[in-house]
Amino acid sequence: MLDGIDLSKINLNEMMGQVQEMAAKAKEDGKNQVFTSKVGGGMIELSINGNSEVTDLQIDDSLLEDKDSLQILLISAMNDVIKQSDDAKKSMAMNMMGGMNPFAK
Amino acid sequence: MLDGIDLSKINLNEMMGQVQEMAAKAKEDGKNQVFTSKVGGGMIELSINGNSEVTDLQIDDSLLEDKDSLQILLISAMNDVIKQSDDAKKSMAMNMMGGMNPFAK
Repeated sequence: MLDGIDLSKINLNEMMGQVQEMAAKAKEDGKNQVFTSKVGGGMIELSINGNSEVTDLQIDDSLLEDKDSLQILLISAMNDVIKQSDDAKKSMAMNMMGGMNPFAK
Repeated sequence: MLDGIDLSKINLNEMMGQVQEMAAKAKEDGKNQVFTSKVGGGMIELSINGNSEVTDLQIDDSLLEDKDSLQILLISAMNDVIKQSDDAKKSMAMNMMGGMNPFAK
């Protein structure tokens, strides 16, 4: 699959520099990304940013009367937003790898 | 920093195979890891596994009377467990990279 690459031409130091630069940019961009999950017909709304930091949580008053449903819906919303944020990080990493030029001088 | 490595000896196909194998094992191991956060003096207890899947949430009844505190404490617990799980994934990835043998035939 990768046989065509002439490895002796790869500049590893250059590559490491590019990776660090891109990672810093990704972290900066991640702050501005927002992923939201609405569960229980909107009774819970949870938001997370691209760096997997939870930024906002809204719980409908009616759920305060039913702790079991509150806990189940919260777990569901959390797993949803964590997955959205992780998936976005993975695709950003793939794009980063695609954008690298390992043969740069 | 990396000038000493003779890149022409690296077997990329072998390396990719090792990475995939290690990633599958890491995912399996991640299921069994549990990270827990207790906030508000234990009024909220939240658990997540090594694959960043929330597995358990316990809320003390008293918090159902104070929605603002409930929301603030939940956000704090979520950010705590997400960070614990992400840090564990990062150190596992570093160990994986250390364990790789790019020159294997």
